Formats: sequence, structure tokens, C-alpha cells
Amino acid sequence: MTTTNVKVYKDLMGENEKWANETRRLLTEKCVLMINLIGSPGSGKTALLERMAKSLENRIRFAVLEGDVETTRDAERIAAVNIQASQLLTGGACHLEAKLVHYALKDLPLDDLDMVVVENVGNLVCPAEFDVGEMAKIAVLSVAEGDDKPSKYPLLFHEAKAVILTKIDLLLHVDFDVDDCIANIKRINASAPVFTLSAKTGIGVDNWINWLHERR
Amino acid sequence: MTTTNVKVYKDLMGENEKWANETRRLLTEKCVLMINLIGSPGSGKTALLERMAKSLENRIRFAVLEGDVETTRDAERIAAVNIQASQLLTGGACHLEAKLVHYALKDLPLDDLDMVVVENVGNLVCPAEFDVGEMAKIAVLSVAEGDDKPSKYPLLFHEAKAVILTKIDLLLHVDFDVDDCIANIKRINASAPVFTLSAKTGIGVDNWINWLHERR
Repeated sequence: MTTTNVKVYKDLMGENEKWANETRRLLTEKCVLMINLIGSPGSGKTALLERMAKSLENRIRFAVLEGDVETTRDAERIAAVNIQASQLLTGGACHLEAKLVHYALKDLPLDDLDMVVVENVGNLVCPAEFDVGEMAKIAVLSVAEGDDKPSKYPLLFHEAKAVILTKIDLLLHVDFDVDDCIANIKRINASAPVFTLSAKTGIGVDNWINWLHERR
Repeated sequence: MTTTNVKVYKDLMGENEKWANETRRLLTEKCVLMINLIGSPGSGKTALLERMAKSLENRIRFAVLEGDVETTRDAERIAAVNIQASQLLTGGACHLEAKLVHYALKDLPLDDLDMVVVENVGNLVCPAEFDVGEMAKIAVLSVAEGDDKPSKYPLLFHEAKAVILTKIDLLLHVDFDVDDCIANIKRINASAPVFTLSAKTGIGVDNWINWLHERR
């Protein structure tokens, strides 16, 4: 008899759902909002968080759970702007799952926080499939990536409660039609607001922050 | 008794390897080179292929197998520059596997080709784990993504036979240190050459094409 490496998806997904629900219970009890930022490598998720640290000036007290395949670089960038950050290393996996997020969340001082931001592994595909207990998935797309990406990777844009188009300071130098892109997003998800901003210059960041205020 | 959705990974991986080997056998018999372009969404893989169509002017006769989650947009872009292209839709999966590539490859007129380029699903993580029968994985990274990406997503850069840094026309407008990035790549993979180029302006494309000529 040979042995085979069997994974039972049904149980695995049940396990993920269990931890995600436990996380949402804890967040509700503590009145803490949790969002899950999902986008390609280099879409500007960490730069957006650095800018939010500056712009919010503690009006929304937040901490960051940084998902990555390797390195603690992003958590160090966030800590450098005086925001508490934990690094969640997936050990090769292309997305975060709920159990790892739950354990990291429990170690945060939730009584002193208004919001937790999960920055998922840089990937437009897989993280959209996994509930990590967030109240809202947020799609992050840089204008350097191209305006066709919502149509090519629709699941994330379908699941997102808001979409952020980043790096608009580059619009003069890249082929990206903002109106076309927003129309594409609206075809997939009519209700999600689309924010256009530049973390580098700060333009447009206030609209996104106002939306976060309303979610709380 | 309940039913569960069981996947046996051992068999799946063996299956993938079988198709990959079958593909390499066919390519060797036909004297056709096959490369596998892997990079984030928007890293410029399709734009590079469009530029190669212009620059090669049939000196290397090639066809393209376009991997995507959804849409036939990329295959249409390639067909528009008079290169034969097939669209491989993964139906939600974040990477190409060898069987799908093999079936698409068999439908190409291999006797009239020198090279087949597989453009994988836009994703820096998962496609690096799958052998689709290529002779070389090629990592594609745009300077808009950031010079830290090789350290954060090391598997692809470790597996790659060459690395292409794209969109260098944007270097004036983004924070990207080319020397730092190349040093990072060399730490992961000392032997892979690194090509810096812009598909938009054409600068640097010749060095990449010369390398392809040598591989044949």
C-alpha cells in the first residue's frame, strides 16, 4: 500500500471560516474595524499605509498586520512611521489565512485601537478567495499596472467594498485611462466606491480617509 | 457517510511532471525553444511580446501561449501584431499547469516555429512553483513595482534563467535603485543575467533578444 499526501479542502475551508468568524466576533466586541488590503506586488499598499500614518495623525488609531512570503521589510517600514506592525510570514504561501491573522490580532492592544489593517501578500488572485475575518476587502491597483486589470482579475474587484487606484502622480507617464478603468470596475461591482490617489504627493488621500471614518 | 472533496497532491504533481516532460520531449524533437514569462499583473509581459514582434521581424519565428484567469485580451493584443497567439484560461486558478500548456502547444505549427513564449498568469508567487515544460523561466519585474521585490518573492528569482527589469522609461518618476535591485537578484541567483529595458521606447530590448538567439 502506498501513502499519498491528501488534503481535504472541505475541512480546511471550514477551519478558515471558523477562525475568520472568531476574529469578527473579537473585533465587534472591541469596536475595532478591520480591512484587508489586496493588490499586486508593488501596487503601493505599504506606501499608502505610510501616508495614512501621516495624514491620520492618530484621528483613527490603527495597527498593521503585514502579510508577506519572506522578509520583515514592510513591517519595518510601518514601524518607522510609528505605527504598530506585526509581520505575518506565510512561508511560501501566496495569501493569508484566517488562523494566522487571528493569532496576530489577539496580540494587538485592541482596547487602544480603532482599526486594524491587514496588508495581504502581493497578489491579485489568491488572497481574494480567503476570508481572514475582515469587515471589508479593499482592492489596490496602481495606474502603472494598466486599466484592463479589473476585467482580467475580476474576483477581487467583485469582492471589494472599495477600490483604490494608486500612483496617480504617474498618469502623465503611463497609458492608463482612469474613466475606462472605473467603468470596468463598475461593470463588475456597481456599489464599490473608487478612490484615485497618490501616496507620494498625498492627493486624493482625504477622500479615502473620510470613507474609513464613515465605516467606523 | 458524508462525502468530502479530496485532492491528492502527490498524484497531481506527478501528473504535472508527466505533461511537462512530454512537452519538453516534443519541443526537443521539433528544435523549438520554450520560455515561461512570469511576473506581476502589469509588469509589462504582454508589452514586451509586442515589442519583440516588432524587433525580431521574423528572425526568431515565435508563437505565444497567453495564460490568464479571464478574458482573451492579451491574445488579441498579440494577434494584432501578427504573432500567432492562443489564450489559455485557467478558470480562476492563479497559475498555468503543464497539461493545459501541452494541449495548446500541440495545436501550434511547431515545424514553422523557432520559439514558443508562455506568458503566465500575472502573479509573482504561484507560477514559479509549476514546471510547464519550459526550458527557462524568465522573471519580469517593472521598475514601478519597487526594487525590494526580489527579496520579498525569492522563489521566482531563484528559479529564473534570466531576469528582465521593464519600464525603465519610468525610472525618473519612481523610487527604484537599479543597482540595489540587481545586487538583490544576484544574492538569490548569481548566474541569471539581468536585462534592463523599456518595451515602450525599445531601449535595451536588443540585449534580451541577443540572449534569446544564443539560447537557440
